[in-house]
Amino acid sequence: MSQSGPYRNPTPTVDVIIEWQDKGVLLIERRNAPHGWALPGGFMDEGETAEAGAVREAKEETSLDVELIEQFLVYSDPRRDPRKHTLSVVFIARAPSGEPRAEDDALNIRAFTRETLPDNMCFDHGQILADYFAYRDEGLRPRLSPGWRGDDGK
Amino acid sequence: MSQSGPYRNPTPTVDVIIEWQDKGVLLIERRNAPHGWALPGGFMDEGETAEAGAVREAKEETSLDVELIEQFLVYSDPRRDPRKHTLSVVFIARAPSGEPRAEDDALNIRAFTRETLPDNMCFDHGQILADYFAYRDEGLRPRLSPGWRGDDGK
Repeated sequence: MSQSGPYRNPTPTVDVIIEWQDKGVLLIERRNAPHGWALPGGFMDEGETAEAGAVREAKEETSLDVELIEQFLVYSDPRRDPRKHTLSVVFIARAPSGEPRAEDDALNIRAFTRETLPDNMCFDHGQILADYFAYRDEGLRPRLSPGWRGDDGK
Repeated sequence: MSQSGPYRNPTPTVDVIIEWQDKGVLLIERRNAPHGWALPGGFMDEGETAEAGAVREAKEETSLDVELIEQFLVYSDPRRDPRKHTLSVVFIARAPSGEPRAEDDALNIRAFTRETLPDNMCFDHGQILADYFAYRDEGLRPRLSPGWRGDDGK
């Protein structure tokens, strides 16, 4: 657990799968590169828990006050973000009231279902949502991050 | 998701609950401060997944080749480590063969059960193991990190 010298660590982020009424999950269209659709989320700040970061980022990007349901899974493949190595703590949440509004880094916001997901999704968020829908629809909770051994080309 | 300027992020770590045959879970006595008993674990390296980091740290501190069973939960309370803000991705694993040997940062290694856990546990590892035993014995999987709202004095 000790660490000294020039070690470098991945940067922790949070992403939030927001179940929006019965209309699906909310994705934002990113204002900044990489462009495309993504889960609301962002970097964890020093001094806040992952949970508090998830609530904060959801508010900043969608204007919604979300209720966290559960931690889903951590995704940490070094190739998941082209800019640098990040890990994401992914949460499932609901927004019982309010209207989503694209804010901050978000250009647009829309609810998508498993059938209507856009093709141009950023990062590994397509994989995350595939895992999420398998969990919600079939009860299959992923136990480990898919492809963590690096043996599936991801 | 963009981040520029003087932002600071927590540092990601991994900890591993190793189920050692039918003898309980393995804890190490730490060589460095803070002193006491702790789960095997350490800092995630840039370029490795959390899963790979967990296997590596378990090997370094116990000499065992573990098989990961599942991600358990992320613990990220800013007060969990007195040195700096870390978050820990906690895994459950088993070690089907081999003899545990204290290595690296570990001074001693021992298997403990729910009834024999030591009093002098480091960090929030007592809480993590309380959550783990509730999961293993009663099937209660924690959905969010306990006390993340900061309202329970943790």
